[in-house]
Amino acid sequence: MKIDYRLYLVTDRTLTGETHFYEKVQQALKGGVTLLQVREKEVGSREFYDITCTLKKIAAPFGVPVIVNDRLDIALAADADGLHIGEGDLPVEVARKWLGNRKLLGYSAGSPSSAAYGERMGADYIGAGAVFPTDSKKDAGTAIGLKTLEEVVKSVGIPVVGIGGISAANLSQVKATGVAGVSLISAVLGHAEPEKAAKELTLQWTT
Amino acid sequence: MKIDYRLYLVTDRTLTGETHFYEKVQQALKGGVTLLQVREKEVGSREFYDITCTLKKIAAPFGVPVIVNDRLDIALAADADGLHIGEGDLPVEVARKWLGNRKLLGYSAGSPSSAAYGERMGADYIGAGAVFPTDSKKDAGTAIGLKTLEEVVKSVGIPVVGIGGISAANLSQVKATGVAGVSLISAVLGHAEPEKAAKELTLQWTT
Ligand code: NI
Repeated sequence: MKIDYRLYLVTDRTLTGETHFYEKVQQALKGGVTLLQVREKEVGSREFYDITCTLKKIAAPFGVPVIVNDRLDIALAADADGLHIGEGDLPVEVARKWLGNRKLLGYSAGSPSSAAYGERMGADYIGAGAVFPTDSKKDAGTAIGLKTLEEVVKSVGIPVVGIGGISAANLSQVKATGVAGVSLISAVLGHAEPEKAAKELTLQWTT
Repeated sequence: MKIDYRLYLVTDRTLTGETHFYEKVQQALKGGVTLLQVREKEVGSREFYDITCTLKKIAAPFGVPVIVNDRLDIALAADADGLHIGEGDLPVEVARKWLGNRKLLGYSAGSPSSAAYGERMGADYIGAGAVFPTDSKKDAGTAIGLKTLEEVVKSVGIPVVGIGGISAANLSQVKATGVAGVSLISAVLGHAEPEKAAKELTLQWTT
């Protein structure tokens, strides 16, 4: 599976409201999102599973892979394209064992050593951040900044995606660190027009 | 795997406090618990996984199988003996598919039709309840009573375990419905001496 990491959208239903959630994700896909991560923290397993199945259907016409955050069981059950985990989740090697080699495995890291650990244990890519300070609790922790992001990129042989506080205003600086793409939440889903936001970010990345 | 459902303990760290949790579960096992379910609602995946691995080690000398509540991924990753799910969790048939046939699958049901559905979709046993009213939020919903419990037992060909508000005081009435065992939380873990509580309940069941 050849993955395009450039515009990696992470879902957040609190930003869109439940009513317009799927609609806004679809607009973002129209605007050029290349990879989609389903992140849900406060739902039951059945609802998480149902949301993932629905997002797979929405993403399919765009050929965009769907990655599940944290929950290996939801990734397996919904036959998602991959799983993204961090320190508080299942051990990387355990996740890889159950996921098999045909599914994508991402690991969140905030330092070069943590990124190298993730790669060694079997991750396919690293989500590094938070790059910039962010209001979102979900990207808690101190911002690592562009310098550390660049060090993370240099410390591993797998693709690195920057996450946290990234917007059109700082995208080119982030790209200059050598990342394969950027992970976005509010810059796309918090925008009144997610399609437009995704288009602008894609343009920003390309030029 | 031949399962002894008689004294099925469901964990609750809020009853024991974290400090004495493992100690109290071990005492309960000494007292005669025959089956152990790990139930955690407010922890991260890694912690849930670690707790399950620890409980497996504690239960192993007693030959007591360890079942994971809700989380298929934790059951798989920790190589637990089974999974217990309910309506808000993954679909039964999806859980069965990933769990395989060598692991135990339990399904929570509050009516004969729901129990029959669970059996048809692949469950190995039914957890039926709440039998009696209970303070615990975890067994929310109206109590089904002994009559409905008996109807559930008659509606399926697989073992049924009663759950909710069961104690030494009503155990013989519950047993008379034809259940294969009783599921207990507070009657054992809320007791100052879980070993003594489990012993008394075992005696109550046997006589
Ligand atoms: Ni102690």
